[in-house]
Amino acid sequence: MSAAPSSLREGDDPAGDDVARDAYLLTPGPITTSFATKAAMLHDWGSRDPAFIDMTRRVRRRLLELVRAERDHVCVPIQGSGTFAIEATIGTLVPPQGKVLILVNGVYGRRMKQICEYYGRSHRVLETAEHVPADPAALNSVLADDPEVTHVAAVHCETTSGILNPIGEIAKVVAGQRRSLIIDAMSTFGAIDIDADEVPFDALVASANKCLEGLPGLGFAIVRREKLERSKGNAPSLSLDLYEQWRGLEDNGQWRFTPPTHVIAALDHALTELEEEGGVTARGARYGQNSRILLDGLQDMGFVSALDEDVQAPIILTWLNPADPRFDFQVFYESLSRRGFLIYPGKLTLAETFRIGCIGRLGETEMRATLDAVHSTIEEMGVTDCSPKVR
Amino acid sequence: MSAAPSSLREGDDPAGDDVARDAYLLTPGPITTSFATKAAMLHDWGSRDPAFIDMTRRVRRRLLELVRAERDHVCVPIQGSGTFAIEATIGTLVPPQGKVLILVNGVYGRRMKQICEYYGRSHRVLETAEHVPADPAALNSVLADDPEVTHVAAVHCETTSGILNPIGEIAKVVAGQRRSLIIDAMSTFGAIDIDADEVPFDALVASANKCLEGLPGLGFAIVRREKLERSKGNAPSLSLDLYEQWRGLEDNGQWRFTPPTHVIAALDHALTELEEEGGVTARGARYGQNSRILLDGLQDMGFVSALDEDVQAPIILTWLNPADPRFDFQVFYESLSRRGFLIYPGKLTLAETFRIGCIGRLGETEMRATLDAVHSTIEEMGVTDCSPKVR
Repeated sequence: MSAAPSSLREGDDPAGDDVARDAYLLTPGPITTSFATKAAMLHDWGSRDPAFIDMTRRVRRRLLELVRAERDHVCVPIQGSGTFAIEATIGTLVPPQGKVLILVNGVYGRRMKQICEYYGRSHRVLETAEHVPADPAALNSVLADDPEVTHVAAVHCETTSGILNPIGEIAKVVAGQRRSLIIDAMSTFGAIDIDADEVPFDALVASANKCLEGLPGLGFAIVRREKLERSKGNAPSLSLDLYEQWRGLEDNGQWRFTPPTHVIAALDHALTELEEEGGVTARGARYGQNSRILLDGLQDMGFVSALDEDVQAPIILTWLNPADPRFDFQVFYESLSRRGFLIYPGKLTLAETFRIGCIGRLGETEMRATLDAVHSTIEEMGVTDCSPKVR
Repeated sequence: MSAAPSSLREGDDPAGDDVARDAYLLTPGPITTSFATKAAMLHDWGSRDPAFIDMTRRVRRRLLELVRAERDHVCVPIQGSGTFAIEATIGTLVPPQGKVLILVNGVYGRRMKQICEYYGRSHRVLETAEHVPADPAALNSVLADDPEVTHVAAVHCETTSGILNPIGEIAKVVAGQRRSLIIDAMSTFGAIDIDADEVPFDALVASANKCLEGLPGLGFAIVRREKLERSKGNAPSLSLDLYEQWRGLEDNGQWRFTPPTHVIAALDHALTELEEEGGVTARGARYGQNSRILLDGLQDMGFVSALDEDVQAPIILTWLNPADPRFDFQVFYESLSRRGFLIYPGKLTLAETFRIGCIGRLGETEMRATLDAVHSTIEEMGVTDCSPKVR
């Protein structure tokens, strides 16, 4: 496994050996991609030409296959960031008289609440602390008590902390209560398996530039066909009307509005790389190894993770800032950046943290190099104790 | 002039001489871009890293400068196609109690009407036939008679036909009647000059992948700061809230939601190519020459343009289908496509037409090659008379 990403990354530096490589993006996305994926963009396509129509059709089919959803679902791509795709899905599937129960334990759950507020869609929130997974039993009680709830919206991996929510159990509860489930699988799609037969959902939303290792500018929803067919006229936005986007693609294979042709070509190539790597299982295993190396290495240095290991997804890790007054996040960031490693500030409300991602076209070699860079930086800063003030 | 685009296109074929070049995109966009513009995407950027923040700031400033709007306006980029940017602008600038007068002579005017319908914004339409420019005098009467109208929405070049609407006169009327003007300059920005001091507007919307010769996936609005400041809370969509998009960029230079980093890098490079070519005037002159070559050449073959020359923009040309029964658009399209030239079907409601674009990284050489290809195709089809049934 560990050799695969490195060998696939040969020639990643288009400028040649004389020039420094791009920084590794240890973030929740955009992430580091292969040179070949980026090079797939070195052409121009006519967006209404048969060659591009074929490419769109192929990408849509491949995305469906990744979650074994070909039988009952369709894939509807949409221009923009992941949030655009989430908004399009909620706006199209939830009718004006619907009510959404949103499972919240971070920024992306709260963002779905914001979307409901913009659209004037009735909603309520079931919240857990940011380090605590969503609770299927509590969900079951709320659904039993509130027959007005028509839809449940849940985030698979909440990158605010990096926590993995129990999406299989959530889906069983929602199906048992005969409601409709919308999954934000933005940061897991392509690396943590979801099987449409085992995890029933009406919509699953993701984007090209996370675990699929494509480029930003494109999201998509895998939607149960029967539900989409009944959603005409729901969407409050022309651009983000998922029903009309789907009808356009079905009618003649063309996008309603100019598609990001180059980003789609890159995703098409990235999906080939995913296949070549061994699919979702193999990619998940590589990210799992990346995560393991970082967890062990940073804990060895005395850093403390914000999450318990049993709820940690192998996507992004959140670390409590060291209490040592010589630790300063901005200095830490800039020093790592100079060394060619980009990390992320934390987003937790309860504690000062930083985040290091495990995803993208990176493997064991790059993770070990990351640890070396963190170690050198900490030394340079004069931080002798990496433990936080409080756990 | 004519040598510039060809020399700039050296090395456009990344696969080397052995492989056929990409088809020339003689369309209203996406268009043919330079190899260097596409190659600007061969890197990965951290979307919250200072290097990318600087790039966003630079692109926003350069776009403002192109219409000399630095004093009173701000540039707000937004992910997605041009329609996403139009919807964001109308949704954010027009308050719920506003009323929009839309000047319509084609698909893109009608699309702004659709946006108002989705958003439940009061509106009315002032329509002219698709081959007739918007009428400033009629606009003046309607505005004088209807004090409820708060905003006027106009398309600069309506690519349905290729017609140029008299945006300068429209702007004077709107300013004289003290209303707010929103310009869809999608297909002219970067090639047909608009000076914010001479053509007063509150918003001007365009995208990266037309005359700027960038790639699709990014739109932007140049908005009068004073008006944008007063638009908080208007937008019906989270993703397409131009006010919040602007506040996010002003607060810390970062995009609210994952930006299409590679497309932005390509636009940054494309703006450098625009400068190197000599700016908007030089680019407009090249497109004017492209247009002239196509008009003369196709008319010499007997084709008849759908537009009078005095209302024709040098962006895209619409041609009436030959009456000869041996002419079949699909065969015509496919034959040109095999030769490496992609054209567009017509969109006029009144007559069967086809369209050939004049924009993108193409010059005299490519236009003459286009004429040769059309000539060979017509001959191959056995069409002896290219004149249409009726004028």
